[in-house]
Amino acid sequence: MPLILHEYAPSGNCYKIRLTAALTGTAIERRGYDIMAGETRTPAFLANVNANGRIPVLQDGDRFLPESNAACFYLADGSALIPADPFDRADMLRWMFWEQYNHEPNIATVRFWMGWVGEANLDDLQRALLPGKRAAGLAALRLMDEHLGGREWFVGDAPSLADICLYAYTHVAEEGGFALSPFPAVRAWIARVAAIRGYIPIDA
Amino acid sequence: MPLILHEYAPSGNCYKIRLTAALTGTAIERRGYDIMAGETRTPAFLANVNANGRIPVLQDGDRFLPESNAACFYLADGSALIPADPFDRADMLRWMFWEQYNHEPNIATVRFWMGWVGEANLDDLQRALLPGKRAAGLAALRLMDEHLGGREWFVGDAPSLADICLYAYTHVAEEGGFALSPFPAVRAWIARVAAIRGYIPIDA
Repeated sequence: MPLILHEYAPSGNCYKIRLTAALTGTAIERRGYDIMAGETRTPAFLANVNANGRIPVLQDGDRFLPESNAACFYLADGSALIPADPFDRADMLRWMFWEQYNHEPNIATVRFWMGWVGEANLDDLQRALLPGKRAAGLAALRLMDEHLGGREWFVGDAPSLADICLYAYTHVAEEGGFALSPFPAVRAWIARVAAIRGYIPIDA
Repeated sequence: MPLILHEYAPSGNCYKIRLTAALTGTAIERRGYDIMAGETRTPAFLANVNANGRIPVLQDGDRFLPESNAACFYLADGSALIPADPFDRADMLRWMFWEQYNHEPNIATVRFWMGWVGEANLDDLQRALLPGKRAAGLAALRLMDEHLGGREWFVGDAPSLADICLYAYTHVAEEGGFALSPFPAVRAWIARVAAIRGYIPIDA
């Protein structure tokens, strides 16, 4: 039985799982939900797919795995996308945790607010948070750019899940108003990821 | 050369690393920073320890590993705290990512605001965020309580890093005003974690 990805296609968190599946040659079946219509908050979704009311969720038989970066780890376990060296493996996870804590809540959230909610429809609290999220998103891109100066990949000398997971929302950051022009090392790295054999784009 | 933990002792993120070290019998040397005095934002810290300006950071020789859950993974790699089954291993990471995304930014942040910053000293934005963080923290505790109903550990039938990482801020949640009395399965699980052989408390 193929793995099933419960997803919303334009989400970078969902895309990173599809990209990992493509790079590892894993067949997945896609099942879409309209998050704007609340389809991941229905009683059936909460009871059967994810009590946390979020996509993506990767399903293997009767088991369900929420959290995008955990799903990527499951798909890539045993592949070259997870470094064999213990420190490098932990360092890959370090960038994946950093992505979910410092990058996604800023860059992905602002992209969602600008492109899906619409700036004119933000509520007062979102409006108050926007400047801080823009600044934190820029700081995240700056930290990535500095780290990538003089190196090709986030960890060691080969692509790992750290690159895949960070690529997902970075390469569409401009949709949230984050210009990538000041970050040449990030732009060169984006081109390197897109050139990995087996790569698929977010709208595939 | 022993591992060095760059830390602020009362931080749950730092404690989870000390607890993992204790449970795996790993010697660590502790180096404290006063985060209230900005000691993790000095040029020297940013240049030599963590460009992201945060503790904890685990140092092994001349390599530095930020992100608490990545440091726990490094210490526990190869131990029984990381399940051998691939799905369980990914499911452990799922709870660790969930901890950093849904639990820590609410339960740990409110604890910090109440116990360190002081409610009277919160700025307008923090004050506006507080009700949402309280609600999200309660939702996180509720989800944990439901998951633990009828099971002893978060993943499989033995303690894993999912338990250690979630325990760190859950067992001190009342310091942020999150009453644990409505969550009996969480309270029973807290007692089970504290009874693991080799356990050390947060103030050890």
